[in-house]
Amino acid sequence: MSADGKTGLQLRSLIKKNGELEISLVSLPIPEPAADEVVVRVEASPINPSDLGLLIGAADMTTAKLSGAKESPVITARVPEAGMKAMAGRLDESMAVGNEGAGVVIKSGSSDAAKALMGKTVAMIGGAMYSQYRCLKVNECLPLPAGTTPAEGASCFVNPLTALGMTETMRREGHKALVHTAAASNLGQMLNKICLKDGIGLVNIVRSPQQADILRKIGAKHIVDSTAPAFMDDLTNALVETGATLAFDAIGGGKLAGQILTCMEVAINKTAKVYSRYGSSVHKQVYIYGGLDLRPTELNRAFGMAWGVGGWLLFPFLQKIGPVEGARLRQRVVDELKTTFASHYTQVVSLQEALQLSHVAVYAKRATGEKYLINPNKG
Amino acid sequence: MSADGKTGLQLRSLIKKNGELEISLVSLPIPEPAADEVVVRVEASPINPSDLGLLIGAADMTTAKLSGAKESPVITARVPEAGMKAMAGRLDESMAVGNEGAGVVIKSGSSDAAKALMGKTVAMIGGAMYSQYRCLKVNECLPLPAGTTPAEGASCFVNPLTALGMTETMRREGHKALVHTAAASNLGQMLNKICLKDGIGLVNIVRSPQQADILRKIGAKHIVDSTAPAFMDDLTNALVETGATLAFDAIGGGKLAGQILTCMEVAINKTAKVYSRYGSSVHKQVYIYGGLDLRPTELNRAFGMAWGVGGWLLFPFLQKIGPVEGARLRQRVVDELKTTFASHYTQVVSLQEALQLSHVAVYAKRATGEKYLINPNKG
Repeated sequence: MSADGKTGLQLRSLIKKNGELEISLVSLPIPEPAADEVVVRVEASPINPSDLGLLIGAADMTTAKLSGAKESPVITARVPEAGMKAMAGRLDESMAVGNEGAGVVIKSGSSDAAKALMGKTVAMIGGAMYSQYRCLKVNECLPLPAGTTPAEGASCFVNPLTALGMTETMRREGHKALVHTAAASNLGQMLNKICLKDGIGLVNIVRSPQQADILRKIGAKHIVDSTAPAFMDDLTNALVETGATLAFDAIGGGKLAGQILTCMEVAINKTAKVYSRYGSSVHKQVYIYGGLDLRPTELNRAFGMAWGVGGWLLFPFLQKIGPVEGARLRQRVVDELKTTFASHYTQVVSLQEALQLSHVAVYAKRATGEKYLINPNKG
Repeated sequence: MSADGKTGLQLRSLIKKNGELEISLVSLPIPEPAADEVVVRVEASPINPSDLGLLIGAADMTTAKLSGAKESPVITARVPEAGMKAMAGRLDESMAVGNEGAGVVIKSGSSDAAKALMGKTVAMIGGAMYSQYRCLKVNECLPLPAGTTPAEGASCFVNPLTALGMTETMRREGHKALVHTAAASNLGQMLNKICLKDGIGLVNIVRSPQQADILRKIGAKHIVDSTAPAFMDDLTNALVETGATLAFDAIGGGKLAGQILTCMEVAINKTAKVYSRYGSSVHKQVYIYGGLDLRPTELNRAFGMAWGVGGWLLFPFLQKIGPVEGARLRQRVVDELKTTFASHYTQVVSLQEALQLSHVAVYAKRATGEKYLINPNKG
C-alpha cells in the first residue's frame, strides 16, 4: 500500500507495435467494492507456465534489459519478428497478469455475503493477481479453512483443477490409466498423489535422471526417461503394465506425442489376435496442454487409424463439466490442500523483485523444479 | 471359371519374412453356399486407395518384377527395411484382397432369402473381391435395382459411405461446413455432388490447376490450389465464406493439416472481439483418413488450443452410428447410384491384366484421375 493508503501497485505487460515487450508496475487507486464485491490484499500468487504466456508472450528474454528506479523497475525485451503474428490481438494494450492467488479480505461491499468474508483468507481466480489489491465478486473467492496461509492457498485452482481435470477426462473418455509428460513438475507431482490415492495407473515421462529421482521419492510407480536409450521400450513396457491409452503432454513440440502414440499401439498389439492393416481399433489420445517445446509437433502416424491429438485447456474443460461437477472438484482441492494439493515454491518475491533480471532469467526458462510465488505485499 | 467349371481364380498378396512382396493368382474350388449364403460371380471390383494398403503394403513398386506364365503372372517387389515393422502382423500370410465389388448370384443356399437372390445383380462388401467367385451371407449383399450393371454397382460402399460419413460427422460434431483435400479424387467429386445437393459449404483443396478444372466442371464452388503462392490467403478466404471448421484430409503427411488449422484460426479470429492468449475457443478439427503423403504430419500449433487432429475410418464410423443409420445411408446410395454416387473408371482389367507391370505402375501411384476397375471374369 502506498504511504497515503489509497493506491496499490499492479504488474503490467505491454507488447508494442514496434516489437518491444515492456513489463512495469503501475499505481492504481484501491477500488471501492460494489455490494457483492470484496477487496483482497493479495499476499501470494504463483507464476504458472500459463501466466508466462501473457507475461512475456513471444518475447526473447535473453534480450531483456532493466531500467527504471528501484521501486519502479521496468523490463524491456525484443519480440522476434516471427513471434509478432501471434501477438497481433494484444498489441499496444497494457495487460494485467496473474491467473490465481490468495490473500486477506480488507474491504467488503454492503451485501451480507460480502461482509461475511471480512478478514478471511480467500483463494481467487480471474486474472490481475500480480496486484497489491484486487477487487472481485464474492463468488470468485474461495474461503480457505482456518489455519490456511495465503501461500498455502495461492495455487488452489490452476494446477489442482488441471490435475483433477486429467483424471476426470480419463474417466469420461473411457480410458483406464494415464501418461503424463514433464512429469516431475509441480503439477506432475500433484497428479502422482491423486493417482496413488485414487488407484489410477500413471506413466511419468521425464527428461533427466534427476527428475526421475524427484518422482521416485514421492512414490511414483512408473517412471520413464525420454533421454534414455531404451526410452521406447521402457515406455511400451509401462503402457503394457498400466493399459494407459490417454496422455497429457506439456511438451507439445518434437516427436514425443507421436512416440507415445506409437508405443501405445505396440503395447495394444502385443495382445492382438488378428492382423488389421489399419492398426488396432483401440482409440489412443494425446492432449497437448502446454508448449515447453515450441517446435512443430511431428507425428509419423505409425500407430494405425484410431488416434487423436488435440489441445486441452482447463477452462473449456470446466465449462464442459458444468458448475456442479466443478464445485465438487474445488471442494476436493480445499479438503486436501495441505496434502495432495500442496504446492512447493523455490522463491517468494515481491513485485519489484519479480522484475529483477536474475529472477526473470530463471522463471522465463519454465524449468522443472523452479517455482516462483509473488507476494505483492512483501515488505 | 476353369474348364471343368469347378474352380475360380483369386488374387493373393503375400509379404515374406525376407522382405519380398509377391502378388499372384491362386485357383480355388467354387464354394458350396450354406443355407443363408450365395455364391456371386464377381464382375466388377474397384482398386481403392484402401485396397492398395493390403495389395502392395509398404513395398517399393519401382522394384516390381513380373514372372510366371501369361495366365498366372506373379509380381514380386521389395519392401524397404523401414517399412517391414508395420508389416509384422501379416508376414508369410497369403491374403485375399478387394474390399468391395458387384456381380451376379449364380448359386444360392437353401433359405428363402438366399433363393430370392438367384440371378440378381448385387453389390458386396467384405474383402476378397478380387476373386472370380465369392461366397457370402445374404445380408452382406445389397441387391441393386433392375437395370444396374455390376460396373455401376461396384463402388457402392467405400467411396459413397465415406463421403456420406463426412457430412454426417460434420452434423454430429456440430460443424457447419467442410474442407476436403485431394479433392478432385473420385471420392472428392462425390462429396461435391452431395454437398451441392444438400446445401453444405465445401472447401476443395487440390494440388494442381488441372485438378481445379475437374472440380470447376462439376460445379464446385470453393476450390483452392495448395501449390499456388496465395494458398494460405485463398484458403482463409474460403473458410471465412463457408465457416468450415472440420476437414477431412487424405494427404496426411507434411504441413497441410496444420496449415488448414492455422487458416481456420485466422478465419475465426477475423470476427473475434477480444484478445485471448489461448486463441479462439471454437473447436477446429482435421480428420486424416488417408496417407497419400507418407511423411510425418507436422503441426506448428499456431492455432490456439481448441483443435484436434485424428484418424478417421469408415468402419468404426459405421459401428458408431449403428445399423439403422447405416441402412439409411446405404439406401441413399442405391437411390442415387447413377447420379450422386456414379463412379468413373479409366481402366477395366482382368485379374491377369491387373498383374501387368504397366498397370501396376499406374494404380500404385494413387494418382487422382486414374481409377481402376477389376473384372475378375473379363474374358
